[in-house]
Amino acid sequence: MRWGDMDAYGHVNNVEIVRILEEARVHAFGPPGGTGGPGLQPAVPLFSDVPPGTRSLVVEHRVRYVAELTYRNIPADVDVWISAVKGASLTLAYVIHDPVTGQACVRAETTLAFVDGATGALQRLTATQREMAAAHKGASVFA
Amino acid sequence: MRWGDMDAYGHVNNVEIVRILEEARVHAFGPPGGTGGPGLQPAVPLFSDVPPGTRSLVVEHRVRYVAELTYRNIPADVDVWISAVKGASLTLAYVIHDPVTGQACVRAETTLAFVDGATGALQRLTATQREMAAAHKGASVFA
Amino acid sequence: MRWGDMDAYGHVNNVEIVRILEEARVHAFGPPGGTGGPGLQPAVPLFSDVPPGTRSLVVEHRVRYVAELTYRNIPADVDVWISAVKGASLTLAYVIHDPVTGQACVRAETTLAFVDGATGALQRLTATQREMAAAHKGASVFA
Amino acid sequence: MRWGDMDAYGHVNNVEIVRILEEARVHAFGPPGGTGGPGLQPAVPLFSDVPPGTRSLVVEHRVRYVAELTYRNIPADVDVWISAVKGASLTLAYVIHDPVTGQACVRAETTLAFVDGATGALQRLTATQREMAAAHKGASVFA
Repeated sequence: MRWGDMDAYGHVNNVEIVRILEEARVHAFGPPGGTGGPGLQPAVPLFSDVPPGTRSLVVEHRVRYVAELTYRNIPADVDVWISAVKGASLTLAYVIHDPVTGQACVRAETTLAFVDGATGALQRLTATQREMAAAHKGASVFA
Repeated sequence: MRWGDMDAYGHVNNVEIVRILEEARVHAFGPPGGTGGPGLQPAVPLFSDVPPGTRSLVVEHRVRYVAELTYRNIPADVDVWISAVKGASLTLAYVIHDPVTGQACVRAETTLAFVDGATGALQRLTATQREMAAAHKGASVFA
Repeated sequence: MRWGDMDAYGHVNNVEIVRILEEARVHAFGPPGGTGGPGLQPAVPLFSDVPPGTRSLVVEHRVRYVAELTYRNIPADVDVWISAVKGASLTLAYVIHDPVTGQACVRAETTLAFVDGATGALQRLTATQREMAAAHKGASVFA
Repeated sequence: MRWGDMDAYGHVNNVEIVRILEEARVHAFGPPGGTGGPGLQPAVPLFSDVPPGTRSLVVEHRVRYVAELTYRNIPADVDVWISAVKGASLTLAYVIHDPVTGQACVRAETTLAFVDGATGALQRLTATQREMAAAHKGASVFA
């Protein structure tokens, strides 16, 4: 969490929570293909182990704010897993917990697709991506 | 749109689109209660004409990214209306259009609730809010 | 201004003020070269009328926060001009005013340089840029 | 660093660098008084060990961008120290390094003042704050 994530109500702003989801994805699965420089290789390089020029695009977000998230000067605890895999897209599920109280504050899902950066054509998931996704498969938070 | 809304892919970032939805709400219905200073009175003060101390909280976002939104140095065109009204919450629906091509790029809905800022108790919609909402009622974008 | 520009103190956050300066530059002089799509042609296309592949980079910001900026649901008033022109850089000066009270809240300067996006080589200002800059020349806010 | 800190040029945006400075301050000296919830007690609670109701306000930023900062999926290295102490304000100095190459990318200073949140009256630094500041005193980056 960043101090600037708070809004005028003094809690973490709903939009910044969507940014925190992005960071949780990046920490779990690596930075989107073709962006940034080498840093830490993620344990599960679902986003970064893609053909050169591939972009990962958000197709849909669904975010349910269960309780206000209080800003703390330590990272939020976020569980991330894969809740659905299709031929050319996958859905990530998350729960954000208050790192002090452990309370579940946000439940969310994001559907991503991979496209060719030059042509915009949808890319089917690679065999490697399907394996990684299968190893981290869990239930939907909205089931 | 702000130039800084673009990400490393050179289009408007998915998180900043959720910020644009917030701005669309604020422009249509006024700033959330108890924040900011007097500026322009919105035509439909659904958020600002609330008892003192009332906060409007986001309960759920659902955002579908239909097409990439290209940054332009002019405002995006956003249609906003009310798609559902319940006793203590209401749902806003939006479509964001590219202001140059007119293409629909994002369809989204946000459910809001009003709470007492001191106690956190859920507030039922006021008669005035129900009237305002009724006058701007339309279909769900996810129907 | 955006509602989300406020921080936990309920005023416009100091970092978001630097974002507002960016927007003021873009509105006055056009989007930085090679980014975004066609929208409104600015009256003074100092940033957008550059050789293809040119990037405008911030070399230095100096921002003095004279008074708290209250969020209003209308744009801030920002004066922007050029306070210095050198061979390969120029300095912009700004004053941000509260759009309701007219109070000067922020005085700032930004030094920009133009570089070749491929090689990173510094570009000298073009004759056209020097003319545009000369026509909007004024005093430093820190003199 | 957050992936979303990159702009359309694919490097960390100049405004987000000012946000990173804010985070560096908060990590070193604690969250500004009266905001957020308890988390980790910082080793040097210069901002959080203040009378209740005290706010820390940014008076001036000066930020020199020496080299482009490449996004990495690991934190940037930031050195922070105190470069000046006056009766009612103090100046922090920072150098941001690329965490992979070690290159110094940004040199910056921020002057802060402490005010009473209710009256806005400037607060003189407390004896404890002066001690903490003295123990972390260094040279200006702009000397």
